[in-house]
Amino acid sequence: MTLPLKLSPIIHVLGLLLVALAITMMIPALVEAQMVDTLPLEFIFSAAVTGFFGLMAVLATRDDGDFTLDLKQAFLLTALSWIVLPAFAALPLMGLGLNEDVGFSYTDAVFETVSGLTTTGSTVISGLDDLLPGLLLWRSLLNWIGGVGIIVMAIIMLPFLRIGGMQLFRTESSDKSEKIIPKATEMVQWITGVYVGLTAACALGYLVTGMNGFDAINHAMATLATGGFSTHDSSFGGYGQATQWVGIVFMLAGGLPFIAFIKFLRGRHRALIDDPQIQAFLKFLVWVILGSAILLMADQHIGFFDALTMAAFNIVSIVTTTGFASADYTLWGTGAIAGFFLLTFMGGCAGSTAGGIKVYRFQVLWITMREQMLRLNSPNRVVILRYHGTRMPDDLPLSVLAFLAIFFASTAVITLLLAMMDIDFVTALSAAATAITNVGPGLGDMIGPAGNFATLPDSAKWLLSFAMLLGRLEVFTLLMLFDPHFWRD
Amino acid sequence: MTLPLKLSPIIHVLGLLLVALAITMMIPALVEAQMVDTLPLEFIFSAAVTGFFGLMAVLATRDDGDFTLDLKQAFLLTALSWIVLPAFAALPLMGLGLNEDVGFSYTDAVFETVSGLTTTGSTVISGLDDLLPGLLLWRSLLNWIGGVGIIVMAIIMLPFLRIGGMQLFRTESSDKSEKIIPKATEMVQWITGVYVGLTAACALGYLVTGMNGFDAINHAMATLATGGFSTHDSSFGGYGQATQWVGIVFMLAGGLPFIAFIKFLRGRHRALIDDPQIQAFLKFLVWVILGSAILLMADQHIGFFDALTMAAFNIVSIVTTTGFASADYTLWGTGAIAGFFLLTFMGGCAGSTAGGIKVYRFQVLWITMREQMLRLNSPNRVVILRYHGTRMPDDLPLSVLAFLAIFFASTAVITLLLAMMDIDFVTALSAAATAITNVGPGLGDMIGPAGNFATLPDSAKWLLSFAMLLGRLEVFTLLMLFDPHFWRD
Repeated sequence: MTLPLKLSPIIHVLGLLLVALAITMMIPALVEAQMVDTLPLEFIFSAAVTGFFGLMAVLATRDDGDFTLDLKQAFLLTALSWIVLPAFAALPLMGLGLNEDVGFSYTDAVFETVSGLTTTGSTVISGLDDLLPGLLLWRSLLNWIGGVGIIVMAIIMLPFLRIGGMQLFRTESSDKSEKIIPKATEMVQWITGVYVGLTAACALGYLVTGMNGFDAINHAMATLATGGFSTHDSSFGGYGQATQWVGIVFMLAGGLPFIAFIKFLRGRHRALIDDPQIQAFLKFLVWVILGSAILLMADQHIGFFDALTMAAFNIVSIVTTTGFASADYTLWGTGAIAGFFLLTFMGGCAGSTAGGIKVYRFQVLWITMREQMLRLNSPNRVVILRYHGTRMPDDLPLSVLAFLAIFFASTAVITLLLAMMDIDFVTALSAAATAITNVGPGLGDMIGPAGNFATLPDSAKWLLSFAMLLGRLEVFTLLMLFDPHFWRD
Repeated sequence: MTLPLKLSPIIHVLGLLLVALAITMMIPALVEAQMVDTLPLEFIFSAAVTGFFGLMAVLATRDDGDFTLDLKQAFLLTALSWIVLPAFAALPLMGLGLNEDVGFSYTDAVFETVSGLTTTGSTVISGLDDLLPGLLLWRSLLNWIGGVGIIVMAIIMLPFLRIGGMQLFRTESSDKSEKIIPKATEMVQWITGVYVGLTAACALGYLVTGMNGFDAINHAMATLATGGFSTHDSSFGGYGQATQWVGIVFMLAGGLPFIAFIKFLRGRHRALIDDPQIQAFLKFLVWVILGSAILLMADQHIGFFDALTMAAFNIVSIVTTTGFASADYTLWGTGAIAGFFLLTFMGGCAGSTAGGIKVYRFQVLWITMREQMLRLNSPNRVVILRYHGTRMPDDLPLSVLAFLAIFFASTAVITLLLAMMDIDFVTALSAAATAITNVGPGLGDMIGPAGNFATLPDSAKWLLSFAMLLGRLEVFTLLMLFDPHFWRD
């Protein structure tokens, strides 16, 4: 069989990524060696294996010359890098070379790693407070690396691949002659700079509001990534209100389009205020949080500021798809359970670290619905659809709606498969939803904000790992590879 | 304020419908007078009230001459007739003039009536076996009238109103020069003829397989309407397998496009086999039923034919949106619960009495998804979308996808509102789903196949009545009226 695409450039890039991953493993190794007085064998072994396979791949493909990628190669590389990297990044969690009661099974390690890199934040680990510091830091690093990876993918790759309506953002930066940064490399540098800067600011905020240095750095990485891995089983339950407000601010920052930060820093001082996604996102959050805070005041007999903090932290956490919890909101009543379930689907802005459906898709949906109603009223009317004043690409409504359909269809299929593994309906449905939206916590005693995913059967953990990747890759990028047409010329 | 449309023709038609409704109330009145030896006062009073308002409306508008309807008037009449008729058709269930422990509150009566006319089949009545025979017959008649009403609406009105992709069927009968029946009146006669004939055949089938005459007629009406009202609390639980197979056959008939029956009777003998909706519908059902039967055999330790009957009856009942139950399938395990929940959304064929999303929308969705994938692969390719060999109208994919989006958004909003009335998540979600799809039973102890809707709060009953109408009117027909543009010129 001859493939319609050349694999060697893909293997070469994957090899380079593995080498980079192996080097990154040295960071938690060094920290662990400092903090506890033993050799961090789990990282040394894992780095050796990862580095070996990476180098092999790089060396085997080094003479193949042409390394420009075409469309199909770009698809395959994107999908494969999100599959190959977790397969190796999971190794340290297995505790190779350590006492055997320290490590996790490969299933659990892969679930945790996929959850980390996709910035989902679902965990199979209970007893985080006793975990080796290197492994805690590794989890936070997975969140953090996944977060910046997704921004780069969303800003540079997806508009090019025209996934799920992302062509909207290609138009914005190419047609409107506002090419704020000409080159991809420079763009990656800007994104990384903003990301590092915000993470540092967040860590500082956590530090001055009471976290110790180690926790501050770990939580800051998981916050900006809208990942949600914590170093404590109680997540944010043990921290005060000041710390929670720092979290709220930086979870929000992680859910905003990074391109707006970059424009802002390059002198477009209204970039953050003028962005239509940011406007809609914040307006929505203000109303939902205020409404919930008032209901909470009445229901829990607490003061307004306490209610506001509780509502803001947990709602921002779910909507930005972070998944930290400061309280078990499933105890707030049936309305809260349904509300948090629905909020799970929303997601942050496109071009951020957030998952979910995302703000601009709801905006396009709303504009399309308005137009459908107008056309039912006056069938011969010609309506030009505009997004923030600009004419929408003609294929945009259908791209967005097709995305929504495949998103919900995937959630339905995963729910059914989980239920067939003897998992109860609410757990199955909310696990499918929280995985595909990359949020983190589900509903029910098992996987709710007060539980974890440890007790699910292995088959469910593999299925949910797939669901997290599916959501993170905006569904189509991964489904493409299952389409026979992809593999034909 | 001047309205952009003339109301008098609408009021006139509504008046005529009310007069017809009052006359129809005489049928259960006569039957009840025969079967129990008392005066059927509840029907006599209700008919008097309904007839009075109907006649007033007809007389008040009789001199207004022009009775052709424009587009907006057609919308308004369609929506209003589904609101006004239940408001009066509910009266007999209140037991006016009878001993006061016989009747129901207006809330319960309206819920039951809307459930009947929309062919949903959810009930608030426990103790059906002891209900007055006239009221049992009235419930079945509501199902039956609603069923034929919806076919007439789907075949004649909705394609004209271009709701949710129904323009597909306008194209089929107008562009392909196969105008099988030229005039609407003749079409209505054909539909009614087929409907009456199938109902009679079904009643006969029930009769020879063991039902008494009264039950056979009642169940036959509820079967062809895919309504699901039974004369027993146990629904089909008390009937044998032969009776259940009669039910399976005629529930399926109720879920097929009636236009195909009419074509068949007019000599197009392949009309039923060639219909793309029927092909896909039956193929889907065969696979799902066989798969479920095999799982049931293993799980419940029963023989193949028993398992096949159980699977076929309950799956056909849900997918055709009938809602009869021969067993409490929620006891078959977590997979069955999730499976039946998802099947709730499917629905039968367009142009039948079935509700739900409907087969052709899934077909259009599938074709659209394939095209989206192809275009991601080869962005410059021009793909012509075909449905059963015919080029789709250009606006079809967007109409169908917009329908799906609004359908699920409505389900989400209704779920949230129900949950805020202190109803647990599974009950709220499945009640919203089963109402908007016009299926009937939900999940959980309260509204599951073994329960009923009596214990829900009144606010939930009104909300679910609205949801049933919303689903029956394909969402947009009702939402249109809430759009300010509709009321402008």
